[in-house]
Amino acid sequence: MNTGEDKILLSHGNGGRMMHQLIDDLFLRYLGNPILSEQTDAAIFPIDFHEMAFTTDSFVIDPLFFPGGNIGKLAVCGTVNDLAVSGSDPLYISVSFIIEEGLPMKDLETIVISIAEEAKNAKVTVVTGDTKVVNKGKCDKLFINTAGIGRVKKENLLISTGGTVQPGDVIIINGTIGDHGMAVMSARESFNFKYPVKSDCASLNHLIKEVLDQSSGVKFMRDPTRGGVASVLNELAGRAAVGIEIDESILPVNKGVHVMCELLGFDPLYIANEGKVIIVADPAESNHIMEIMKKNDLGRECAVIGRVNVDNPGKVVLKTVTGGRRIIDTLTGDPLPRIC
Amino acid sequence: MNTGEDKILLSHGNGGRMMHQLIDDLFLRYLGNPILSEQTDAAIFPIDFHEMAFTTDSFVIDPLFFPGGNIGKLAVCGTVNDLAVSGSDPLYISVSFIIEEGLPMKDLETIVISIAEEAKNAKVTVVTGDTKVVNKGKCDKLFINTAGIGRVKKENLLISTGGTVQPGDVIIINGTIGDHGMAVMSARESFNFKYPVKSDCASLNHLIKEVLDQSSGVKFMRDPTRGGVASVLNELAGRAAVGIEIDESILPVNKGVHVMCELLGFDPLYIANEGKVIIVADPAESNHIMEIMKKNDLGRECAVIGRVNVDNPGKVVLKTVTGGRRIIDTLTGDPLPRIC
Repeated sequence: MNTGEDKILLSHGNGGRMMHQLIDDLFLRYLGNPILSEQTDAAIFPIDFHEMAFTTDSFVIDPLFFPGGNIGKLAVCGTVNDLAVSGSDPLYISVSFIIEEGLPMKDLETIVISIAEEAKNAKVTVVTGDTKVVNKGKCDKLFINTAGIGRVKKENLLISTGGTVQPGDVIIINGTIGDHGMAVMSARESFNFKYPVKSDCASLNHLIKEVLDQSSGVKFMRDPTRGGVASVLNELAGRAAVGIEIDESILPVNKGVHVMCELLGFDPLYIANEGKVIIVADPAESNHIMEIMKKNDLGRECAVIGRVNVDNPGKVVLKTVTGGRRIIDTLTGDPLPRIC
Repeated sequence: MNTGEDKILLSHGNGGRMMHQLIDDLFLRYLGNPILSEQTDAAIFPIDFHEMAFTTDSFVIDPLFFPGGNIGKLAVCGTVNDLAVSGSDPLYISVSFIIEEGLPMKDLETIVISIAEEAKNAKVTVVTGDTKVVNKGKCDKLFINTAGIGRVKKENLLISTGGTVQPGDVIIINGTIGDHGMAVMSARESFNFKYPVKSDCASLNHLIKEVLDQSSGVKFMRDPTRGGVASVLNELAGRAAVGIEIDESILPVNKGVHVMCELLGFDPLYIANEGKVIIVADPAESNHIMEIMKKNDLGRECAVIGRVNVDNPGKVVLKTVTGGRRIIDTLTGDPLPRIC
């Protein structure tokens, strides 16, 4: 094993370089197989000739409640979105609780109600679950794991791998970036800014289905959670061996997120989102896709933020507002642990 | 909500009465639907006319390493067994890690290797996963969630609900009881008994498939994990509105487990197993099923431990070695937290 460290560090969980190293050098080394090694958000495999998607995520967000949601809503949205960006219709989810002894029952109830509401909203059914309780001090209030199953249409099978992405393709996002990470940060630090920041936490499956049903121009989709937009684009650039250029002046950023990032020295490109999808599309279809998205509340602020090109294969380049260009690398440190 | 407490207690996670109350009054109240409300070990539902099983479990066992296994092996066996006792062939599993900052990389590697080995042994494929790292002190070394998907044959659809159980049916177990819980206990307390105790942690899917493929006499199966044999039988007695009598003199208990239980005041009927299955079967098929089981290493010590009857519907009665009878109730306290 060559993870470079003899102990687990926080940055092994940040969605960036060290986490990928841990996944490659440890998890894939021992557990690797053709399905797992694809490293898509949801695994895709056939069962009796039906293509299925299967995904899992553990949620350890701190604090449990934040502007725009709570750990329960997030646990549903996160798994629904991983299934949806893999080109599948989310159908069933599991919910597993690890609860710290002493958690107020009222808090747990509020969170369970949010799970029920968001599952209803996303039209997924919670079909199985598990409950563990650990002694006080042995976990931090509450962790929730959700796993989910979806069905993939044959024509959407390649979307999660990005295998058909090519220079000229456009990069679309459905709205503003950095809202979730900054909302968690503001809840954690009890900031009181003039411009309030709210998490974008939302289930995107209906929006994504509308796009996939009405356009055949989608080549790749991914939700920019941990590690933000920068990490998703870097992963795609590496996978497809293409260059990517994004335009800073077009990046949709809410005023509150912009101010917080300026003040605290964060770059919204690295901040987690929980209701955003990056779509890489055929340029001939980009206007059509944007029209479809704008009809849905969750896509109203969509924008073309960049383009796939032949320059700097494997690299993501930001064209800055002042006209300069700088490379946007994969996340290395961890500015905001436990945002999901 | 009427969970009787305003805070989560350890006994809300013990597999006994308070856990069922929490599930009924909180989780099912808000999340309930016909599939979830069945409360089987794995959810069963059709996808495109194929019956699927889906289950999840979070593992918070302390310590991570114990005689007979570690948290990684356990996380595979636990989910494989939940799928298998539901009458399904386990196919795919997910693995999600919540890691405490500072965990020795070497320990994580050993655990991942065990996951790989046990998955290979059980013939399931790890197809998706997730990694979270939390700050030191915010979880206890390592928690692992696994979820799993299996395929159910139509003829096995009723096995997880026990809907066809009736008086006269026999209760079979594939071997000794209480090994896992006592092995964890001895690892935790560093006991040094004359008779060493080893966890029975094992994937039972091959054994169960052999039985189901060769006999049509199986009416109900369940793996007696948290809460032990007593809890599974109580649940069945309640579900099927039947009485159950078990015979203490026939209960298979290893010498070491027997000695530890005597010394520490535990009843092996309430102690967790991780490689045991309780099979309720048509009496005409019981010898045949025992013959099939004895050909597999994991079923060599199988025994008929009791019978379904019409006395005391909803109750489990133990015929003691001295010829007396006492009611074996559902677990209420929690003798051994964090054994899985």
